[in-house]
Amino acid sequence: MPLLHMDLATQMGNEMKIEILSIGNEILSGATVDTNFVYLASRLLEEGYQVAFHEVIPDDPEIMKEVFQRALQRSSIVITTGGLGPTIDDRTRGVTADVFDKKLVLSEDVKEYLIKRYGKDLSTIDVQSMVPEDTKLLKNEVGVAPGFFYEGKSSMFVFPGVPSEMKAMFENFALKEILTLLSNEKKMYSKSMYLCHVSEHMVDPYLRDLDRAYPDVEKGIYPGYGVLSISFKVKESSEKKAMGILDNCIEAIAEKFYTHVYSTEDKDIALAVHTHMTKHNLTLATAESCTGGNIAAKITEIPGASNYFLGSIVSYSNQMKESVLKVRKQTLDAFGAVSEETVKEMLEGVMEISGADYVMAVTGIAGPAGGTPKKPVGLVYCGLMKKGEEPHIAKILAKGAAKRHLVIEYTSNFMLGTLYRKVVYDITPFSNVKTSIPVSR
Amino acid sequence: MPLLHMDLATQMGNEMKIEILSIGNEILSGATVDTNFVYLASRLLEEGYQVAFHEVIPDDPEIMKEVFQRALQRSSIVITTGGLGPTIDDRTRGVTADVFDKKLVLSEDVKEYLIKRYGKDLSTIDVQSMVPEDTKLLKNEVGVAPGFFYEGKSSMFVFPGVPSEMKAMFENFALKEILTLLSNEKKMYSKSMYLCHVSEHMVDPYLRDLDRAYPDVEKGIYPGYGVLSISFKVKESSEKKAMGILDNCIEAIAEKFYTHVYSTEDKDIALAVHTHMTKHNLTLATAESCTGGNIAAKITEIPGASNYFLGSIVSYSNQMKESVLKVRKQTLDAFGAVSEETVKEMLEGVMEISGADYVMAVTGIAGPAGGTPKKPVGLVYCGLMKKGEEPHIAKILAKGAAKRHLVIEYTSNFMLGTLYRKVVYDITPFSNVKTSIPVSR
Repeated sequence: MPLLHMDLATQMGNEMKIEILSIGNEILSGATVDTNFVYLASRLLEEGYQVAFHEVIPDDPEIMKEVFQRALQRSSIVITTGGLGPTIDDRTRGVTADVFDKKLVLSEDVKEYLIKRYGKDLSTIDVQSMVPEDTKLLKNEVGVAPGFFYEGKSSMFVFPGVPSEMKAMFENFALKEILTLLSNEKKMYSKSMYLCHVSEHMVDPYLRDLDRAYPDVEKGIYPGYGVLSISFKVKESSEKKAMGILDNCIEAIAEKFYTHVYSTEDKDIALAVHTHMTKHNLTLATAESCTGGNIAAKITEIPGASNYFLGSIVSYSNQMKESVLKVRKQTLDAFGAVSEETVKEMLEGVMEISGADYVMAVTGIAGPAGGTPKKPVGLVYCGLMKKGEEPHIAKILAKGAAKRHLVIEYTSNFMLGTLYRKVVYDITPFSNVKTSIPVSR
Repeated sequence: MPLLHMDLATQMGNEMKIEILSIGNEILSGATVDTNFVYLASRLLEEGYQVAFHEVIPDDPEIMKEVFQRALQRSSIVITTGGLGPTIDDRTRGVTADVFDKKLVLSEDVKEYLIKRYGKDLSTIDVQSMVPEDTKLLKNEVGVAPGFFYEGKSSMFVFPGVPSEMKAMFENFALKEILTLLSNEKKMYSKSMYLCHVSEHMVDPYLRDLDRAYPDVEKGIYPGYGVLSISFKVKESSEKKAMGILDNCIEAIAEKFYTHVYSTEDKDIALAVHTHMTKHNLTLATAESCTGGNIAAKITEIPGASNYFLGSIVSYSNQMKESVLKVRKQTLDAFGAVSEETVKEMLEGVMEISGADYVMAVTGIAGPAGGTPKKPVGLVYCGLMKKGEEPHIAKILAKGAAKRHLVIEYTSNFMLGTLYRKVVYDITPFSNVKTSIPVSR
């Protein structure tokens, strides 16, 4: 994932830096993915500020102290998550007091708040009310451990590790304080665009052109499976100017790939489909073999999917292809389950059952076993049919992605992209012609 | 996620520490999740070594240099990922040479290897062949950027950021070298167990008992949605002794929750189901409403699912419940789609269609809209039926998890757990009695 232009660090030279410290052995052991960091970094970037450093440290007071001290030296705003519970391994309170040379005292503010929420009988109430002197409370509206922050030459925000508690605390109390501290800083503005049926190397030359026209814009390109995200970031004192530049970048790429851009707001291609189908009162049903329900699951993860999605026949066995979708035994015998003929009958079957405005069907070899020289792993027949029209069939080959879950993911996104381009622009990337679309990664 | 016992840091005092540095602004901005770190940390722990530090840094040579120097001072083995490509923002080579006080030279080894793989015409061949003097090549069998390592008082392993390239390089070349460097260190041994239909607070008292019996064992408990992971880690000079202790811990918990333990190998509950169903030649089909294909997708993500899984009817609309599953219109009208009566007819319908040995069905309110005082968001009717037996219906309430994707995830895991306990122990957590199982998180 190359970033084509990278002058962030130089830009950051004289600025207030933000550093995030995640505390916990479970993160260091790889058992828990540090979603707190991802959340905080993304949210801060949305607000215009890029995190400068991120360190993960064990629950060890000596190491914590050393890392806290360094963080406070090199960064103006230090945010910690974890180590705030009532148990012996929760060391963050004490270490924070230590590095600021403050006593750990019982905060009446915190205690009062905890009593209000949990009553007087909460056994850990006194432990949980101990915070360094002179800190301000960050209320925990979700759980027990209160957060706090210390405002100084460098400021420190101390959050619990439970993601729901951290998030509520950050959004409702801390963000306001952080934005106040950063109010004199230049903001970074960013915009993204999301494309389907396009590979990284197709877009790259145009990004390089942009790099010459807008050298100060940081350009990032993040390939998914069957989808591609492009982001532009720029630091400007004026929001209007920044947005103008970012819009120009977006438009320059959109001009080249007009029908491929499914969103400039959200990465989720199912959401783009969802929004259009709902708005135009269209209905959809699917018949899935090799994707095994993954397309339906992506669609139904979005609230309100029942407005347009009627259902899916996950016909994993030939028997269910026959009994439910009425695929003919002769077809399966003569051409196999993975064939243009079978996917066509799957389409017709699910159209017959559902009466949807659009139906989609897929059958392929997700692997790792089951491939043959003629029908290798990654081969998928994809069908799309609008009510009253002829079916469109494409043959794709998820070549590079010869891993089962990647074949499934690529195929699902490819089909959602196909549907999007059909319903919005009435085009299909294939028209009853077998097209081989290799997947590069 | 509390760790009940935490003496790792003390244990680590005099030991060779391992540090992982991830390089790249796309990680700091939250746009890319650092899966490389999770992979490396988990793999090293599997081999018996816990990572001591992890830092994420921007693509800035000055900052990189400072962080590299500190890492080499405090850790014996430093592993970096990222910044090895041929573009201007790829700085890792130069900075590594700098901190070891070595020149960046064209390595004939690397060049020869690249020519062998890509031919002489690769335009970036000379850039990619530049590495610090006296380093050893880590062959890249997947991509272009070669890795390298420098052996010294502290050793440094330099990997590219592309996950597939990093992984192949780590497994095929680096791990052997790392294990040699660590060969005199005490190993950490670990075992995990995975349970369903059990909550964190049910297990906690038994873990506290264990903490008294085995104070040197680090105990971790990681709640999922509908599943629970428990891990035990211990440092011992003898593998046999370590394994004995870990087995005792596993057995102490398993004794209390015998029919809930679905694996001591793999977290994936669908895999436990898969293994048992395949071994005993049993077949399964499902009918999903609120889970929208997620159960089928979990099952079919596993290679060989077609050995036992016949398919799923994702009857998201009432119309498809009627047309495919033959749920009666009267039933839907009188009791609603989310009812014991409907889920029973869904079970009968999918049994009729598939003739499977076992069928499962779910219908519920995933939210966020659609809830009523009588049928709140999170209410799900779950059905399981063995061929020739009466259906079992449970009513669950995913209370705390009133977020759509969490209701879906909880329900999917709950159903897979239900199936597992039925096929392996012939028990169901409910027997035609409505049971309300609240979900705590």
